[in-house]
Amino acid sequence: MTAVGVAKGRVTGPVVARAFSALAAFDAEHPQLSLSELARRTGLPISTVHRLAAELLACGALERGTSGRYQIGLRLWEIGALAPRGPGLREIALPFLEDLCEVTRENVQLAVREDDEVVYVERLAGSRAVPVRTRVGGRFALSATGVGLVLLAHAPGEVVDRVLASPVPRYTRHTLTSTAAIREALAAARRRDCAVSDRQVTDDAVSVAAPIRHGSGPVVAALSIVAHAEGAEVASLSALVRTSAHAVSRALGSVPGPRRFGG
Amino acid sequence: MTAVGVAKGRVTGPVVARAFSALAAFDAEHPQLSLSELARRTGLPISTVHRLAAELLACGALERGTSGRYQIGLRLWEIGALAPRGPGLREIALPFLEDLCEVTRENVQLAVREDDEVVYVERLAGSRAVPVRTRVGGRFALSATGVGLVLLAHAPGEVVDRVLASPVPRYTRHTLTSTAAIREALAAARRRDCAVSDRQVTDDAVSVAAPIRHGSGPVVAALSIVAHAEGAEVASLSALVRTSAHAVSRALGSVPGPRRFGG
Repeated sequence: MTAVGVAKGRVTGPVVARAFSALAAFDAEHPQLSLSELARRTGLPISTVHRLAAELLACGALERGTSGRYQIGLRLWEIGALAPRGPGLREIALPFLEDLCEVTRENVQLAVREDDEVVYVERLAGSRAVPVRTRVGGRFALSATGVGLVLLAHAPGEVVDRVLASPVPRYTRHTLTSTAAIREALAAARRRDCAVSDRQVTDDAVSVAAPIRHGSGPVVAALSIVAHAEGAEVASLSALVRTSAHAVSRALGSVPGPRRFGG
Repeated sequence: MTAVGVAKGRVTGPVVARAFSALAAFDAEHPQLSLSELARRTGLPISTVHRLAAELLACGALERGTSGRYQIGLRLWEIGALAPRGPGLREIALPFLEDLCEVTRENVQLAVREDDEVVYVERLAGSRAVPVRTRVGGRFALSATGVGLVLLAHAPGEVVDRVLASPVPRYTRHTLTSTAAIREALAAARRRDCAVSDRQVTDDAVSVAAPIRHGSGPVVAALSIVAHAEGAEVASLSALVRTSAHAVSRALGSVPGPRRFGG
């Protein structure tokens, strides 16, 4: 899982880009930062960071914790909660995720693609769920997980080429890393309307994922069940997850107008 | 419920403040905006909005929906998800909220104070829950709801003075609007470690709320049960919500270091 790379590799007007690089310096492992940590993580001079932090505090994008260190402000969460591909999608999909979680008592995950990575929008853990490495709002490689394979299978060709041209991370001895094996897995995911990641992220978990479409249109998200690999019945998990993904697709497509999801 | 007022009434460096006023132009009723709508809602010239939108698109804070209109970007949601007073608090409190929801089958709400308003961080609806007017990430008046009365009861005196100096909104004929009645309700909330909002927001709901502290320290949030007013047993709801709020307080206080909540 990488830091939120808001400004990485993009050139924008200096002030807005710098302000966002300061916000993007925070991540799950670093939810609070001092001024000098902010300067180090952004690569900006301390005087610049000092001025930016003051401006971000003034508009509520940053707050100070009681320790005096900076943290992401509640206001930024309020604005972020309006993102159609995050909470907007989650709200529509949640009842179906809850049903799936109650029936299987496994992990159920909802994810979208952002550039060359998976972003997890929701994760429910059933009562017998296997431990997983993901968190809501966190990122992961497209090439390893069930949802990642589904999203990559339906991504533009240049995204696939870019992912395969970079070093593909290996998590277990089962992780697919060869270009040929990954291209074959993507073709299978399109053919079967479903992808299986068998112990490719952790040694004891299998993920079965299906695409979510905007109605009958393009793939906009993926849904998965992550179960204990031992004893998993992949065919029945696949039927379950595909059925639920179709239900979410229908619900997304029936939301009136472009308001709720951005279609 | 008001729009997210990031820049309202605050003076900051012009570019960062303008960029945030563009983001703050989106709200639950307006999750997608055209360039001219953005200009109208921010009061900025269209040429300025055009340049700002391009910069915000470049860093992923905004996206374009398939309709071509602007919407809040997934990246902003990812960064916002790091806010300790939002998802950080929610994650720690969620198991206790789920227990309370399962036992009561009513609405369970978690909220914090931001300036002079309540912000709802989580809401779970049980199987017999009464309809409520709140949404996660939404705002409400401090003077009317159970969580609002708890948060106002433990706010600095100047916040209370400011809230009482402004016109207090009336939702039903039971809404407290006189300064004397509200001050009395705040004193009662402190005395009883619990606040009751009886049909003050909708005609058929009663809310019973208790403070959440950071360990044994300051009040940082409030927890409520919102039930059908008819037949509600306020004393037993109060015992339940206070017990759960104490459990959340203990969990918040025991999180190692200042990392998770910002204490």
